[in-house]
Amino acid sequence: MGRREQKFWGWGEPGAGPPLPEEVAGFLRSAFGVGGDVVNRPASLEDVILPTRELGHGVRRRIAGIVGEAHVRDDRLTRILRAAGKSYLDLLSQRSGRLETAPDAVVAPGSAQEVQAVLEACSADGVAVVPFGGGTSVVGGVAARRGAADGVITLDLARLDRVVSLDERSRTACFDPGVRLPEADRVLGARGYALGHHPQSYEWATVGGCVATRSSGQASTGFGRIDENVVALRCATPAGEVSTLPVPASAAGPSLRELLTGSEGTLGVLTELTLEVRPVSEARRYEGWVLESFAAGADVLCDLAQSGIAPDVARLSDETETGMSLALAGTGSLKARSGVSFLRARGAREGCLLIVGWEDAPQGIGRRRASAARRLRAARGRYVGRATGEAWRAGRYGAPYLRDHLLDRGVLVETLETATTWSNLERLHRLVGHALRSALDTRCLVACHVSHLYASGASLYFTVLARQDTSEPVTQWLRAKEAASRAIMDAGGTITHHHAIGRDHASYLPGEVGTLGIDMLRAVKAQCDPMGIMNPGKLLL
Amino acid sequence: MGRREQKFWGWGEPGAGPPLPEEVAGFLRSAFGVGGDVVNRPASLEDVILPTRELGHGVRRRIAGIVGEAHVRDDRLTRILRAAGKSYLDLLSQRSGRLETAPDAVVAPGSAQEVQAVLEACSADGVAVVPFGGGTSVVGGVAARRGAADGVITLDLARLDRVVSLDERSRTACFDPGVRLPEADRVLGARGYALGHHPQSYEWATVGGCVATRSSGQASTGFGRIDENVVALRCATPAGEVSTLPVPASAAGPSLRELLTGSEGTLGVLTELTLEVRPVSEARRYEGWVLESFAAGADVLCDLAQSGIAPDVARLSDETETGMSLALAGTGSLKARSGVSFLRARGAREGCLLIVGWEDAPQGIGRRRASAARRLRAARGRYVGRATGEAWRAGRYGAPYLRDHLLDRGVLVETLETATTWSNLERLHRLVGHALRSALDTRCLVACHVSHLYASGASLYFTVLARQDTSEPVTQWLRAKEAASRAIMDAGGTITHHHAIGRDHASYLPGEVGTLGIDMLRAVKAQCDPMGIMNPGKLLL
Repeated sequence: MGRREQKFWGWGEPGAGPPLPEEVAGFLRSAFGVGGDVVNRPASLEDVILPTRELGHGVRRRIAGIVGEAHVRDDRLTRILRAAGKSYLDLLSQRSGRLETAPDAVVAPGSAQEVQAVLEACSADGVAVVPFGGGTSVVGGVAARRGAADGVITLDLARLDRVVSLDERSRTACFDPGVRLPEADRVLGARGYALGHHPQSYEWATVGGCVATRSSGQASTGFGRIDENVVALRCATPAGEVSTLPVPASAAGPSLRELLTGSEGTLGVLTELTLEVRPVSEARRYEGWVLESFAAGADVLCDLAQSGIAPDVARLSDETETGMSLALAGTGSLKARSGVSFLRARGAREGCLLIVGWEDAPQGIGRRRASAARRLRAARGRYVGRATGEAWRAGRYGAPYLRDHLLDRGVLVETLETATTWSNLERLHRLVGHALRSALDTRCLVACHVSHLYASGASLYFTVLARQDTSEPVTQWLRAKEAASRAIMDAGGTITHHHAIGRDHASYLPGEVGTLGIDMLRAVKAQCDPMGIMNPGKLLL
Repeated sequence: MGRREQKFWGWGEPGAGPPLPEEVAGFLRSAFGVGGDVVNRPASLEDVILPTRELGHGVRRRIAGIVGEAHVRDDRLTRILRAAGKSYLDLLSQRSGRLETAPDAVVAPGSAQEVQAVLEACSADGVAVVPFGGGTSVVGGVAARRGAADGVITLDLARLDRVVSLDERSRTACFDPGVRLPEADRVLGARGYALGHHPQSYEWATVGGCVATRSSGQASTGFGRIDENVVALRCATPAGEVSTLPVPASAAGPSLRELLTGSEGTLGVLTELTLEVRPVSEARRYEGWVLESFAAGADVLCDLAQSGIAPDVARLSDETETGMSLALAGTGSLKARSGVSFLRARGAREGCLLIVGWEDAPQGIGRRRASAARRLRAARGRYVGRATGEAWRAGRYGAPYLRDHLLDRGVLVETLETATTWSNLERLHRLVGHALRSALDTRCLVACHVSHLYASGASLYFTVLARQDTSEPVTQWLRAKEAASRAIMDAGGTITHHHAIGRDHASYLPGEVGTLGIDMLRAVKAQCDPMGIMNPGKLLL
């Protein structure tokens, strides 16, 4: 593999990320009665218990014949590093040292042809294949489940890491699936372009992984979700290869591109992605505003989105999240000191913080900001300065690092998200918050923000913090997640706006697309993957 | 059915549409040596030969039991009116009075439940079902082919003609499938909204038909293709109903919405569509420019699209189409008298006419027009005034009426279209033009315009005019169409940007999506339509 790796039990490389801010101990005490001392340390590497390897010698040899012996690894560390993703449940499992879903081997093909050959070999031998890009799934998408198969390999796409080509005239670029987002932007940036896709997992996520899971960057309001930026793709499946034409639009029947996008490795492996790119922004401006309430903030965001003058980044925190920012000012992504000082100065505890950002030519920013600022002021929004916005931007990949510190201190911390129409947004916000608080039945904080705007609606992103039930932490979270998911489904939201289905949402997909919808997806899967080896237990149960 | 009907052999109601302008006789003579007299009249109703009805009495009774006897019609006129669409080949067949694809009966359900029940009855009895919306297909999409079935009915959606609801806050509206576009806009307009979808078939096309075929309105550059505006849909299939959630975006796996959009009645019948709507434009401005060449025009359109300042409507004619406008000034959609006078005055025969239009608030138009005009002037574009643009707008639904006049006079006239990336646009333009001219092997005009802009590329829309081979008119066109389609596929264009696949493009779909792509679509069809009754012979051969 050879490239940078995250620690097996948490986010980022060992020692990376911001330290826990001093304010937090006091916050944890007052919010949950949690002391703030480290009460829980992750298992050491030596203590991790792995399942027995079950991959047959014959198939292992055949796979090695395709990719080369050096690229089939089944040492302890490699298996541990590919056993799971980065959800709260994954972290609990990793930290406890019980990794039930480690692959038998990790296979790193060096070309699309090798991917194709490995899939065919595994299909013939009944070995499950779990594609692995950045490994940042928070829905159980990369856990190496074997399903009914005789063995399971993780197909690590790390060696397929090139920006293949750039078509400047058409503003499209072709990528290998395993190229990480910062590397994609670095290569494009040398020619003046950027992918412009910035999920919180930016530092680790891969282009192929983002497309396979319908990722949505923090600037999706301005730059589009990744699925909106896909021009064409190529996919290896056990039944052969399928690819779509690189054309801007087509009326040639149902969209296969949209069938493979979001397929989460259950149909095959995306081996080449052609995406729209954009010139590197000449300038940027991020700033903070305070709205009087979440409802008032949602109103003005709806207005901005429908008037075509939404900022590229727009993130409205509800009262609870704004209060958390107040308490945790100085912390990673929650750092918004200036806005917070302003709030404090005004005694405006009930206000809601709005971060807005533009990335454009200076003139464009000036013009677009002026339009938006007029609407924000008309909605009684108070400008709280650029420092607030820049602080958010500087810390925008920080939350997952903070999470590790909180887990050390016995705090449950997880996120979930949905999307709905504007007319249903406040109801959904209320019902999901209520469901989470009721189910947790302990001192907890349920914070929420809107961060992806569309003409017809927006996403809602919830962060849950509670005192961890240290005896039954998994059950504690599953109960809360189930309640939230039921509330989302009952209120007509989608079970996921950008985290994907994976394992954790698979039981809710039938509620979203219906029995026939599931049967249609199954029919496609049976065609592409007749032996059912592709990422078993994900997407379709 | 009870609503307005087009004449069975041509476009629009009898007598509707503009007369043939006087200039045309001279144009036809000089262009093709065609005299300009009427040499070919359509068959009279009495002379039309229909296939024998084959629908069994039992199934007819069962269907009548569902929709009511009054809504199962198999009289001559009804069958004739539902036998085909509006392509050149359809018109040849209709005008000759040989309608080989008339349905055995035309069934008009009154609700989504009745649609569902009819599909189940037909599936049980092995009767083919051809959904019929506006009947404006130009790719053979509504011809009542029975395939392997024992009979064939046309499912006329005319009674499902309501705007069901409008969600003003979310700017979405829910439609019955059979509501025609002008009626949709009339109902929405009373509340200040519009669908904003204006294909050339606007007067007749239905909302469901547009979604089922991935239609693209003339203002798609500003308002989006219809597939970009679909928020949710509901579809009846022989295997049951499937529906998607009305949410602005989702990461819940492959998109079923995008699988049903463009399915052309081969999976089922769209019974409810939720689309984005927009406020009625406060103002509009259409105007003409002349660019020095097609290449220069494409360059500036690419620039406008990629800079986010494209007009809502942008239509660049190549040299041939501009010359045709010159010759036919005064004619239907080609009326562009002012621009033409300007061209004549300047002696600029080599110029290319560009129509641009904005529909927005006056302030928005002013600002957006100023940005675009700066780029157009920088590209050495010459402004030729609003009259040119307004004339185009006034005549923009006129071409199909003109076509009937041309057929009367022994002229072959047909259109075809594609889309590709900006970097491939001029090559595709050149190759398709060459293929058509070579294949026709007679005096002909191959005109082209770009009319739908995207960041990564654009569409190309070709109009072909030639002296008709009156002994073998079908073969004459099939040869030309085959040559153009091969050129499109060879050059990497899509076989259709907005006309859909239907019958006429079905043999090219495997070239576009590959064998596995076809197998994936077939697998979905087998799931939804196990007896293969849905629109046989369309989309998938």
